[in-house]
Amino acid sequence: MTSSGGARPARVQIVEVSPRDGLQNEAQALATDAKLDLIGRVVAAGARRVEVTGFARPDVVPALADADSVAAAMPADGVEYSALVLNGRGYDRAVTAGIRAVSMVVLCTETFSRRNQRMSVAESVEATRVLRERSAADGVTFSVTVAASFGCPFEGEVPLTRLREVVGRIADLGPDELSLADTIGVGTPGDVAERFGLARELAPGVPLRAHFHDTRNTGVANAVAAVHAGVEALDASLGGIGGCPFAPAATGNVATEDVVYCLERMGIETGLDLGVLIGDSRWLTTELGRPASSGLARAGAFPQDGR
Amino acid sequence: MTSSGGARPARVQIVEVSPRDGLQNEAQALATDAKLDLIGRVVAAGARRVEVTGFARPDVVPALADADSVAAAMPADGVEYSALVLNGRGYDRAVTAGIRAVSMVVLCTETFSRRNQRMSVAESVEATRVLRERSAADGVTFSVTVAASFGCPFEGEVPLTRLREVVGRIADLGPDELSLADTIGVGTPGDVAERFGLARELAPGVPLRAHFHDTRNTGVANAVAAVHAGVEALDASLGGIGGCPFAPAATGNVATEDVVYCLERMGIETGLDLGVLIGDSRWLTTELGRPASSGLARAGAFPQDGR
Repeated sequence: MTSSGGARPARVQIVEVSPRDGLQNEAQALATDAKLDLIGRVVAAGARRVEVTGFARPDVVPALADADSVAAAMPADGVEYSALVLNGRGYDRAVTAGIRAVSMVVLCTETFSRRNQRMSVAESVEATRVLRERSAADGVTFSVTVAASFGCPFEGEVPLTRLREVVGRIADLGPDELSLADTIGVGTPGDVAERFGLARELAPGVPLRAHFHDTRNTGVANAVAAVHAGVEALDASLGGIGGCPFAPAATGNVATEDVVYCLERMGIETGLDLGVLIGDSRWLTTELGRPASSGLARAGAFPQDGR
Repeated sequence: MTSSGGARPARVQIVEVSPRDGLQNEAQALATDAKLDLIGRVVAAGARRVEVTGFARPDVVPALADADSVAAAMPADGVEYSALVLNGRGYDRAVTAGIRAVSMVVLCTETFSRRNQRMSVAESVEATRVLRERSAADGVTFSVTVAASFGCPFEGEVPLTRLREVVGRIADLGPDELSLADTIGVGTPGDVAERFGLARELAPGVPLRAHFHDTRNTGVANAVAAVHAGVEALDASLGGIGGCPFAPAATGNVATEDVVYCLERMGIETGLDLGVLIGDSRWLTTELGRPASSGLARAGAFPQDGR
């Protein structure tokens, strides 16, 4: 039995980010073959958008040093296999490896931008402008994530005026999708409604995407709030793995299976099979040598036979 | 900075249930003195309602065998020190020990009722009727919890028609407060809106209370939904400890500090001091010899200096 409530969207896209954000911050590395296994499994579970890797300097993010190989192994099967890029060099590598959808990241605060990307926010926006032009010419789907949109590990609260300034500059570039990321997991449903309301105002007609970490146990609540705020795509990681190596005390992304359980039970379709996800989550955390951190991997579905 | 959003209640009561539901299901017992320390700490953190113990058979629930001593030690300081009771014998013990507010439990399904209370739902409703009369005569505040209102570990889904029948019979008794409990942690915000809407319809004017377990990581989302549905009181356990020994795969209550962080940041007052709660949570889980299971105990508040 699925409960009904007020008006809400009939479906939402899940962007599986465990191969990129998830693995990027795990203590245990995963071999390339295991990554390809992971990607195949989530696609078999129904995922139609997977962020398969990120193109960063191998010495800075060793877990993604095999980005070129992973990207080159993706089949042409209609699934969106996207990659994170941080600059023109990463974009070149991604496109060379056959990637047709990229996510560029802009930090919302100066301190975080300089520490994470070694450039100012203005420089990051300019790099984004250049890549927006190149991706349009190349026919590559171009998503932009504004990271630390809900709070900064270095500067603390991110004022709405600051978010408005950065999101406004990104919106002016006309991305194919605009994502707000709660990189350090501090947001609440009130923040989600407010900040995505601002994004909708500044980027009318641009599909919105949300990225939540479950650091303070608000991840599922924020996912629900985002769907209610009109967000069309939600990032999530199988098993709740991942984090950001540059953000102190950040923990994993909100778990795919937890989001899918909650949304599907609310009558919001994700296209993912919960039973398959739970099995995949247990497989992944076993591979990583860590306990399952999602509610569904621990407790199982309800009713127990699936749904 | 506290974000604003749509219209919502200005405040909600938190009922600290760690001394009862929390400790009832911990592997490690807590000595009576440590329980009194716990109760004193949460009151010092701002709690004005504490479920301090439950009156059950000591051979069935050994963790609460000191119920009479704990209850008798409560000061007359304006805080509501309540106790769970399951029958007339428990009510007698509670009142003898000085308790002035009791919670009676009725299970929503026959199978769970017979397994947990060794009586039918009809017999449980009749016992509740008798205690409602006695408590009115005694001037004892009488709260009734309908347990397994969102799902049953034995029967699976609990149809709305079933919930309507049981809640309707409880509402007819005129309790001082009506609580719906998601005993096995399967509900979602959609279920919360639907089921508390039903309770409001059946018991107009009766204050509503909610009890959530974070088994499937929906606890905080459900707490937010409950406040939006007009619920006036939320049960929570410091550190997310607890569960129900009779419910397979049940895990802890939603953590007090996680609920307080989320609601306070949404501008909903709880009267509790988050920084003090986090310290108390870490103390409690250390006493119990287990890791902290709440987001806030792991990650700390944001901004780091408190709020």
